[in-house]
Amino acid sequence: MPKKMSVGIYLEEVPDIQHALTDSRESGFNTICCELLTKKYSLNELSGEEQNCEEPFGWFDMALPSADWNSSVVGVLSDVQEQTESHIFNVRTRASQLLEKQMGYAHHLGLPATILNLHPGDSCNLSRLIYSKVTTDGGYHSNVVVWMRLPMVHSKQTVNGAIDVGREESDDIQPISSWNTWNTFRTVGYAERRTFPVLDLPVDLPDQDEIDRWLGEPVKAIFISEESFISNQKGFPVLPKRTQHVIRSFFDIGAQVIMICKPEKSPNHYVHHKQYIEYIYGLYTSEWEEDPVRKYTKGYEDYLQSPLQPLMDNLEANTYEVFERDPTKYNLYQKAMAKALVFKIPEDQKDTKTLVVMVVGAGRGPLIRNCLAAADSVQRRIKIYAVEKNINAVCTLLHLKKHVWGDAVTVISCDMREWHPKEKADIIVSELLGSFGDNELSPECLDGAQTFLKEDGIMIPENYTSFISPIMSPKIHNDVRPFHDVNKHTNCNFETPYVVYMKNFYTIAKPKSLFVFCHPKSDAKESNDRYETVEFEASQDSVLSGFAGYFESLLFDDVLMSIHPRSHSLGMFSWFPIFFPIREPIQVKKGEKIKAHFWRCSSKHNVWYEWSVSEPAPVPIHNVNGRSYTIGL
Amino acid sequence: MPKKMSVGIYLEEVPDIQHALTDSRESGFNTICCELLTKKYSLNELSGEEQNCEEPFGWFDMALPSADWNSSVVGVLSDVQEQTESHIFNVRTRASQLLEKQMGYAHHLGLPATILNLHPGDSCNLSRLIYSKVTTDGGYHSNVVVWMRLPMVHSKQTVNGAIDVGREESDDIQPISSWNTWNTFRTVGYAERRTFPVLDLPVDLPDQDEIDRWLGEPVKAIFISEESFISNQKGFPVLPKRTQHVIRSFFDIGAQVIMICKPEKSPNHYVHHKQYIEYIYGLYTSEWEEDPVRKYTKGYEDYLQSPLQPLMDNLEANTYEVFERDPTKYNLYQKAMAKALVFKIPEDQKDTKTLVVMVVGAGRGPLIRNCLAAADSVQRRIKIYAVEKNINAVCTLLHLKKHVWGDAVTVISCDMREWHPKEKADIIVSELLGSFGDNELSPECLDGAQTFLKEDGIMIPENYTSFISPIMSPKIHNDVRPFHDVNKHTNCNFETPYVVYMKNFYTIAKPKSLFVFCHPKSDAKESNDRYETVEFEASQDSVLSGFAGYFESLLFDDVLMSIHPRSHSLGMFSWFPIFFPIREPIQVKKGEKIKAHFWRCSSKHNVWYEWSVSEPAPVPIHNVNGRSYTIGL
Repeated sequence: MPKKMSVGIYLEEVPDIQHALTDSRESGFNTICCELLTKKYSLNELSGEEQNCEEPFGWFDMALPSADWNSSVVGVLSDVQEQTESHIFNVRTRASQLLEKQMGYAHHLGLPATILNLHPGDSCNLSRLIYSKVTTDGGYHSNVVVWMRLPMVHSKQTVNGAIDVGREESDDIQPISSWNTWNTFRTVGYAERRTFPVLDLPVDLPDQDEIDRWLGEPVKAIFISEESFISNQKGFPVLPKRTQHVIRSFFDIGAQVIMICKPEKSPNHYVHHKQYIEYIYGLYTSEWEEDPVRKYTKGYEDYLQSPLQPLMDNLEANTYEVFERDPTKYNLYQKAMAKALVFKIPEDQKDTKTLVVMVVGAGRGPLIRNCLAAADSVQRRIKIYAVEKNINAVCTLLHLKKHVWGDAVTVISCDMREWHPKEKADIIVSELLGSFGDNELSPECLDGAQTFLKEDGIMIPENYTSFISPIMSPKIHNDVRPFHDVNKHTNCNFETPYVVYMKNFYTIAKPKSLFVFCHPKSDAKESNDRYETVEFEASQDSVLSGFAGYFESLLFDDVLMSIHPRSHSLGMFSWFPIFFPIREPIQVKKGEKIKAHFWRCSSKHNVWYEWSVSEPAPVPIHNVNGRSYTIGL
Repeated sequence: MPKKMSVGIYLEEVPDIQHALTDSRESGFNTICCELLTKKYSLNELSGEEQNCEEPFGWFDMALPSADWNSSVVGVLSDVQEQTESHIFNVRTRASQLLEKQMGYAHHLGLPATILNLHPGDSCNLSRLIYSKVTTDGGYHSNVVVWMRLPMVHSKQTVNGAIDVGREESDDIQPISSWNTWNTFRTVGYAERRTFPVLDLPVDLPDQDEIDRWLGEPVKAIFISEESFISNQKGFPVLPKRTQHVIRSFFDIGAQVIMICKPEKSPNHYVHHKQYIEYIYGLYTSEWEEDPVRKYTKGYEDYLQSPLQPLMDNLEANTYEVFERDPTKYNLYQKAMAKALVFKIPEDQKDTKTLVVMVVGAGRGPLIRNCLAAADSVQRRIKIYAVEKNINAVCTLLHLKKHVWGDAVTVISCDMREWHPKEKADIIVSELLGSFGDNELSPECLDGAQTFLKEDGIMIPENYTSFISPIMSPKIHNDVRPFHDVNKHTNCNFETPYVVYMKNFYTIAKPKSLFVFCHPKSDAKESNDRYETVEFEASQDSVLSGFAGYFESLLFDDVLMSIHPRSHSLGMFSWFPIFFPIREPIQVKKGEKIKAHFWRCSSKHNVWYEWSVSEPAPVPIHNVNGRSYTIGL
C-alpha cells in the first residue's frame, strides 16, 4: 500500500516541461512521464549522425526546482531493444550510448524513476546494459530506477510483430506470457531495488491466474487508457467491476496508476481527465474504508520481522498492549472457555462444583478476564491460578488482583515448567502459539504444565497444526538479503524464518498441513521433534522464493482459531504469516512437482527448524543444527 | 539541536503517576522524571529484607498507555554507587539486583531513558553493572538508556562528603572536575549510545572552559532549579545573561531542560512553574530566530557525510542547486573578480581592452553570472569561456547561452585537464575547493588549467591553506563506527575523513595551518604532495577523538573566503568542516603536547591523505597507501 496515492500521466509530446507539470497538477496528477532528451538528439545518436554541439540536448534543468524533478517527473527512455539485441556492433554501441546518456541525465535531474519498454524476444543484452548501469557493484548510475514497461499479457499481434519474428505464424500459436518476458529479463540482470515491472492494463483482462502471478511481482505502476473506461447511467466514466477489483489489488501492493494521454491540441487538454482521476482516487479511498483490519496492519505490509521469543525474552508492556487489543482472538477464547465450563460442570452442579482453572503464561491477564467473563456468562464457579514467568507482567497481575479481581485469582510468579502446585487443574488455558503454531515452544511449555492437569482435565487449545505453501515473492526474498549477520553463517539470513504480513506474493500452490500437536498428550514422553515432507504442484510458471507458513488451532470443541487463508478468523490481527526463505530462488514450470522437507529439531537449550527442497531441483538443507537460527528454551 | 524542544520536571514524590503526568502536561512539561519501584520495595531489596509477594513492586503499567511510557516518563534509578563499590559481597550483590530489577522494569515499560546519580570517587563496578546490562553484546536490557546525573563541577563540599573520603581536608584542595568523574565512568564501561551525561546547572556557573568541555560531550539534559532564576523589573522570573547563554549552547547540542520540583502539597503545585517553562521555550525560540544560517544547516548537525568527489563523479542538479544558493560565497567571488578586472585593465583602457576570462569547472554557471555582473559593475569588457566536464551541466550552460548570455560566453564541453584552447586567458576563475581546501583536487585540476594562462595572468583563488585542530567529540567518534565496510580494511571507517557540521565537540587547542597551495605555480612541475607536522598544547584534560579541518582562501587581493572559526565568512554555508578521526581516542592531560602528522600523497589515479599522532602517545599511521580512502583523479 503506497503511503500516498499517486496518479500520473504519460505524455507523448511535451513542448514545455514547466507548463506540462503545472497543467497536469491542476488536473490532479502527481507525476508526468515524458522523454528527457530532445527527439532530434536521440534519433541522431541512434543513427550515428553528428550532433549540433551548440544545441542543448535535454530539458533545461533550471526550468523546475530539484524538488519537482525529484518527485514529479518520470523520464521515458528510448525504445531500443531492437538495437541492443542487434548483431551489428555499431548499432548496439550507439543504442548503449544513448541509454547511458539518458540514464545519466535522469541521474543528474534526480528523477524518481525512468520507463523503458520491454518486448518479447531477446533482451539479454538490454538486461546487461541496464544491470551494469544500475548495480551498486560499480554501476555508474546506481541511483537510477528503471521501470520496465510491458503489457499484462502479450497479445498475439504483439508477439508476431515483435523482434522475435522467427516463429511460424499460425492461428493456434499461444500468446507468450509477458510474465516470462519479464522473468527472463530480471533473472539475467538481477538489479534488485533498481528494476521493476510496470504494466499496461488491457481492455480485455487476462485470467485471474495471470493477474495473481503479477501480484507476486514488485509492480510499481499500472498504465490505463481511456478505452478501459465505460460510461455509467449518469454518463460519468467508470471502470467495469472486474477492472476495479484488479486495480485495487495492485494498489494493495503499492502500485500507482498512470493514465496514457493522447496528444491533443486544446490548451487545457488535461482538464477532461479530471473525472478519471477523481474516480481512481475514489477507488483507492473506498478500498481502505472497507477493511477494518487495515488500521492495525498499516505499515507492516511485506515488512520482515524476527519472530518473537517470548519464552527466552520477556515481552514488553507495549507488546502486551498491542496484542491485548485483538478483538477476535479473545472472543474465541472466551467462547471456548464457556463451552469447556459447561462441558465440565453439568447444569445441576453449577452451584456446588468449583473448577480449578490455570492460566499458564497469563501475561497481563487478558485470559483471566476471559475466564471470569465466561464463568459469569454460563454461571459456573471457578478458581483461577495465573502463572507468569515475566516478573514485570506479574507486577500488573498483582495490581489487578489488588484492585479488581480479589480472591478469585491467585497470582503465581513462576515459570510453568518449574511450578509445583498444591492442587491439580480441571482446565489449563494458554496462549503460547506463534505464527507457525508451535514456533514459540508451546509444546515444550505445555509438557511442563500437563503434569498438573487432572486425569480428566482439558487443555485449551486442544491442538494446533502448521501449514506451508510454496510462494513467489521477489520483493520479500530481496528484503531478506540485508539481514546478513557477519558473526553467523554466510547464509544465515536465508536460514531464518521471518514473520511478515505478506502482500506482494503469489501462492504457487495451496497450503498443506505439516506438523500437528495435541494437548494433553496421551504419552507425556512423546517427543516434540518432527520430520514431514509435503508435495505441491505448481499452478503456473513461476519462481519459488520460499514457503509461507500458517496455523490452525482448535481451542475447544468446534472453536477454531486460524490464520490459514482458507479459514482465517475474521478480524484477527495477532499473527502474520511466517516465511521460510530459500537461498537461491528456483525457476518452476507449470505442473512441476515441488517437494518440501521440514524438520523440527531440539537440543537441551534450543529448538529449531531445518528445511530443504528436493524437487523440482534439490537445494542444501537450510539451518542444519540450528547454525543460523534457534528458539531458546 | 533537538527536533522538538522538551522541558521535563523532576519529581521527588509521586503518589499517582496518571495525575502527575496530567498535571505536569497542563503546566507545559513534556516529561516527568520519577522513581519506578516503590520506595519500600527498593529499600527492602537493598537491605536484604524479605519482600511482600502480594504487593505490586512498581507502577501499574496499565495506568498509562504505552505511548506515554515510551515518550513522557524518565525513570529514576536508586542512588547505589556507595553500595556497588562496597567491599562487602552481599551489599554489592543486592545493589546489583536492585539495579537489574529497576532497569528491567524500565525496559518493560519502554521508557525513553532512566537517570542514575554519579558521584566522585570509585565507580568502576557501577560502570561494569550498567555496561553489562545495556551493551548489545549480550546485555539483557540493551534498549535501556541511562542518563548519568552529575553536577557541572563538584563543589568542595560534595567532594569532601563523597564516598572517596580518604583525602586530607584542607583549604587548598582543588575541587575535582566532574568531567573527570564522567570520563572515567564512560571510558571503563564503554556503552555508546546507551549512557549519556546529564548535568545539574549550579547557581554559580563554572569557567567557560569547563562548560566548553562539557559541550563536547553528548549531554542529554540540564537540570535547573528555581534558585537559578532571578526576578526582572516586572517581577517575572528570568535567568542571568550568562546562564541564558549557557543553556542555549546546550540546546544547540540537543540537550533538554529538566526543572527540579520540590515536593509541595498544594493540589496544583506545578502551576507556578508555568512562567519558568514559558521563559525557557522563549530562550529556545529566540535562539533559532537569531541565526539565519540555521535554515540551511538544520538537520546536518553532527551528521557525517562522505566528502564529495566532483572530479570523479558528476554532481547532480540538486547538489548544484543547493550550492548555488550560498549568498556569501558568490558575493566574495564577484568582489574578487571586480578587483581583478580593475587591476588588469586601467581606467583609460576600459573601452578598448577585452580580457579573456576562463571559468574552469563552470557547473551550471554561477561564476559566469558573477563575472558578467562584476564586469558590468566596473565597466570592463570581458570574453568568457565556460569549461565544464559534466555533460549534464553543459546542457544547462547551453540553455543559458542560448536564451540569456548569447555571444559573451563560449561553452566548452571538456575536462580542463584535456582542453587545448586557441587563445590564452588573462584570468582563470575556479571554485574547486573542498572543506579542507585542496581535498577536491583543485591543485591537480589547476595544474592543467595553468597551461593556458597568460604569463602575467591571474588565477582566482590565488591561494588556499588548510588548518587542523585537535578535538574531543565522543558523539562524532561513535558515529564513525557504523561506517564500517566489510570489503575494505578493518579500520577503514576510522581511516576516512568525513564532512560534518560539528556542534557537539570541544576544541582542545586552536587550529593551526597545515598545507598551502598558490596559483599560478612559479614552477609548474612542483609536486602537490605534502608532509607537515603540527604541535598543539592541550588546554584541559580531555580525550582526543581526531582532528577538525578547515580552510582559508585568498580569492584576490584582500578578498578572503574562510571556514576557519577565527575568520569564517559570515553567512556562508557551502562548506562544513572536515573531520579526520583517530581509531582509538587518546586520554590527554592539560598542558600535554599533541603532535600531529599529515601527509598528502598521490599515484597516477588517486590522491589521498595519511595521518598519525606521535605525542602524547603514538598511533599507527591511518590510511597508509590510501588503503581505506582515496580521491579519484
